[in-house]
Amino acid sequence: MGVYRIISVTICAFIAFPTLTVAAKKIQHDAEYYVVQTQHAEQWAAEDDELDKRLKALRDKYGNPPNIVHIMWDDNGIGEFGNKLFNKIRGYNTPKINALAKEGATFARMYTEPSCTPSRAAALTGRLPIRCGMFKVLFPPDGMGLPGEEVTIAEVLSKAGYATAFYGKAHQGDIKESYPHNQGFDEANASLYNQAGPTWWNELGEAAGATVGWSKDTWDKEYALDQNFRPYDYVMAIEAKKGDKVAKEWAVPSIESYNRLHSHIEKKSMEFIQKNAKSKEPFYLAYWPNLPVRPPAKLPGETWSTSSANWYAEAVEDLDKSVGKVIDELKRLGIAENTLVIAMADNGPMEETAPVGPWSIFRGGKGSFLEGGIRVTAWAWWPGVIEPDTVIGDIIHISDLFTTFARLGGGMKYIPTDRVIDGIDQTALLINGDTHGRRDYNIVYSGPMLAAITKQQFKRHFIGDRPGLVGKGFFNLYWDPREEHGMMQELLWAWGNFELMKERHEKLIEKYPNTPPRHGDPLGGIERISR
Amino acid sequence: MGVYRIISVTICAFIAFPTLTVAAKKIQHDAEYYVVQTQHAEQWAAEDDELDKRLKALRDKYGNPPNIVHIMWDDNGIGEFGNKLFNKIRGYNTPKINALAKEGATFARMYTEPSCTPSRAAALTGRLPIRCGMFKVLFPPDGMGLPGEEVTIAEVLSKAGYATAFYGKAHQGDIKESYPHNQGFDEANASLYNQAGPTWWNELGEAAGATVGWSKDTWDKEYALDQNFRPYDYVMAIEAKKGDKVAKEWAVPSIESYNRLHSHIEKKSMEFIQKNAKSKEPFYLAYWPNLPVRPPAKLPGETWSTSSANWYAEAVEDLDKSVGKVIDELKRLGIAENTLVIAMADNGPMEETAPVGPWSIFRGGKGSFLEGGIRVTAWAWWPGVIEPDTVIGDIIHISDLFTTFARLGGGMKYIPTDRVIDGIDQTALLINGDTHGRRDYNIVYSGPMLAAITKQQFKRHFIGDRPGLVGKGFFNLYWDPREEHGMMQELLWAWGNFELMKERHEKLIEKYPNTPPRHGDPLGGIERISR
Repeated sequence: MGVYRIISVTICAFIAFPTLTVAAKKIQHDAEYYVVQTQHAEQWAAEDDELDKRLKALRDKYGNPPNIVHIMWDDNGIGEFGNKLFNKIRGYNTPKINALAKEGATFARMYTEPSCTPSRAAALTGRLPIRCGMFKVLFPPDGMGLPGEEVTIAEVLSKAGYATAFYGKAHQGDIKESYPHNQGFDEANASLYNQAGPTWWNELGEAAGATVGWSKDTWDKEYALDQNFRPYDYVMAIEAKKGDKVAKEWAVPSIESYNRLHSHIEKKSMEFIQKNAKSKEPFYLAYWPNLPVRPPAKLPGETWSTSSANWYAEAVEDLDKSVGKVIDELKRLGIAENTLVIAMADNGPMEETAPVGPWSIFRGGKGSFLEGGIRVTAWAWWPGVIEPDTVIGDIIHISDLFTTFARLGGGMKYIPTDRVIDGIDQTALLINGDTHGRRDYNIVYSGPMLAAITKQQFKRHFIGDRPGLVGKGFFNLYWDPREEHGMMQELLWAWGNFELMKERHEKLIEKYPNTPPRHGDPLGGIERISR
Repeated sequence: MGVYRIISVTICAFIAFPTLTVAAKKIQHDAEYYVVQTQHAEQWAAEDDELDKRLKALRDKYGNPPNIVHIMWDDNGIGEFGNKLFNKIRGYNTPKINALAKEGATFARMYTEPSCTPSRAAALTGRLPIRCGMFKVLFPPDGMGLPGEEVTIAEVLSKAGYATAFYGKAHQGDIKESYPHNQGFDEANASLYNQAGPTWWNELGEAAGATVGWSKDTWDKEYALDQNFRPYDYVMAIEAKKGDKVAKEWAVPSIESYNRLHSHIEKKSMEFIQKNAKSKEPFYLAYWPNLPVRPPAKLPGETWSTSSANWYAEAVEDLDKSVGKVIDELKRLGIAENTLVIAMADNGPMEETAPVGPWSIFRGGKGSFLEGGIRVTAWAWWPGVIEPDTVIGDIIHISDLFTTFARLGGGMKYIPTDRVIDGIDQTALLINGDTHGRRDYNIVYSGPMLAAITKQQFKRHFIGDRPGLVGKGFFNLYWDPREEHGMMQELLWAWGNFELMKERHEKLIEKYPNTPPRHGDPLGGIERISR
């Protein structure tokens, strides 16, 4: 009886906690943060004072707060690159990313959302994508997208005086309010969807077996009543500046334009860096290349140089070169010491492309709430500030980048206080390194469902559980990184606390309700190229 | 028709190959070696000339051929340690082994046999364990062991003038001829069996749930007719010198003596290194500690220091310290530049100890012919000779160490020529590094069965195949390191060549028949401690 009373009292206390102690106009984090924060309040406050001094000294030295470059690619798990051992296992070479890892910090527990759209929404807004209807991966035609009232890191940093640019894959929907130049970016070339369309949905994709039933001659010859049941007409990428009433379609979707797209966004990113390098204002660049994805077969006249010899391996080396160009350019321009680079994947490997394609040393891939779906390759690089050749074992979530970038850029006051911000300020983790993290938990959604919660090295799966009785969905990630050996008896002590975490999280949603998925005119406000 | 004729002719030519072209008194390798060797004969001969000069220069400089220390532990797959990222994923620290990796070369494809006894036999004899009846893991009471007529690396190097010692887990049987001091080692303390007996088969093991039905009070109370159906009486380790008529039982098996055993063999190893460091003769040390295994629960008064907090993690850190002591001592004694250290596991993780215990990033564990069973952590260290901080992607098999150590020690002429030696001389790989390997194949046995063959990045499973028709047992290890996506259509071109490899291998066994398992008196020639 005593135990139950304690749990019951604790539920009430902790559920009430966020509203009781957080003053108005302060950032509202998820409930779990305060459970941790109250245990470290003094220490963190002191550390923050030191960090503020450090940041001020840097700002005085360079005249600006740091430039921030967020490089984010697709579908890539731990085990693929970042060191030579992984390269040898996979049969390709990534010298530039390996060098980045040696010069910076490697995250051992960078968690994203399970797929592109949610991860990118979390990075942009600092919020779990469930909070704004961006919880599932979007496919054309959507008529959906990131709601305009979401406040993105581009809006926050713009207000703090940053030049901002978005180049690459947005995947935030095809309604007007969702386009990056309408979400705070000064300039953008943004892919609206994922790469399946331009790379697979064509004759080459059919010839390579990557697409079935696309071309008209592969249709059912007698019973296909609906002649529109193919998304033939969609926009691959748009280019626009903040304030543009109409965005321009960048090119008609095709393999050729897809291949050109990468060179284009790379070039635009370089130009953006170059023109802002000597500016009085700092810059923020979201460089989210449509890699390592590419057409699924050799193009005419193409030869492959990787030992692994497949489209994925070739695309990985393209990605490596592209990341290398950014790093080299920052060094060449002499701004490396005042630029933070975060380089990472947006989620785990897309296992469905097997046997070719990405892998993870963890179980599960893109779309899964298992570690393989959400625990990705990620590095932080900031010469002179981030300790080189280190590994960070703390939990960090992709939404934390929002808040951390805001802190570094002097934009904390522009973070909205009328909603839940899941992203925690992890400036201490970046600057002071391993063990200086500010969260030991992660709330894992799979689509609209709360699928799992991670706390320290323990993870509870809610999906697959036995309703009404705790199941074997408890995992010790140090012991069992692949989540293959669920326990119950051994971790029964954690049952009550995991229930509490879930209840606290859900209770706060009652106070700050989720915004439902935002619908609108598909491809609204785009000037199409005549075809 | 044309294709079939070519294959048929090729079979005959290649099957006949080894007997036709290898002169008498030359080492007889497996047939597949000559397929590779004929394609690189001139290049390798020239490289060997250069290597001989290099080795002679080293010998002139140090007065001796290199000392060789072979450290080999238990059950450990790639993904567990060797770098900080793996440490963070697993929740323990191995700074000494990580440093070893940075100072030396990491093997990405070191293949062992699937379990302790066969792997250790292969290391000692340079032969696939099927060739001498050592193809399965032994458990007490055996009455079996390594045949006396097998020529071990200790015999080869003894003839070449080396002092030799064996300290640790031999697991080569409990018949007299199998004991290390009867197999060429000058001195030895050798565990005859694996660690299950002293660690699990006792009250602590029962209390921890690691052993069931051991103590008398757990027996069937009514129907247990056979009162001897428990291996209560066995020897944990013996200590002896070459020529001793009787080996001494080192201690009565118990948790206490097991824990003492590790300190003892570590101390004996250090003493052996110290006394030979200044000798005119070089030394060979097989230091095969009974780690990372230990009692499966906390001992009275013990506290655990790892974050992972289990017996395995604690044992891993013990292993790390032990490896570090050897390296530090070699440096302290000033002989590091003339000492090759190979540090490695004997096979993949013992998955049955899950959720606690070792893991591998590959699929399968100890006992399996999958990569997880046979592709292990391994490093080579030789300051000034082996390029630091490198990764070797070539295939190397544990039997290669035999031949390579013989070459380095000037003992090639003592390798017997009346039998198949599977181990290839990989001196070029050690000294010239990545891509200088001399095999691109691996014959994988599972017990007495030829289970798989690896050739370059491809692997064909024979176990699980469809008799009479090729199955989906073809894997591309670069694409699919976990062997989860068997192919057939895509790799059908390799069918014929894999069949040829198997036939050539089997044909040579007809000429050089396997020695059947050697039986004898269990625990023969041991002076038991009175109990």
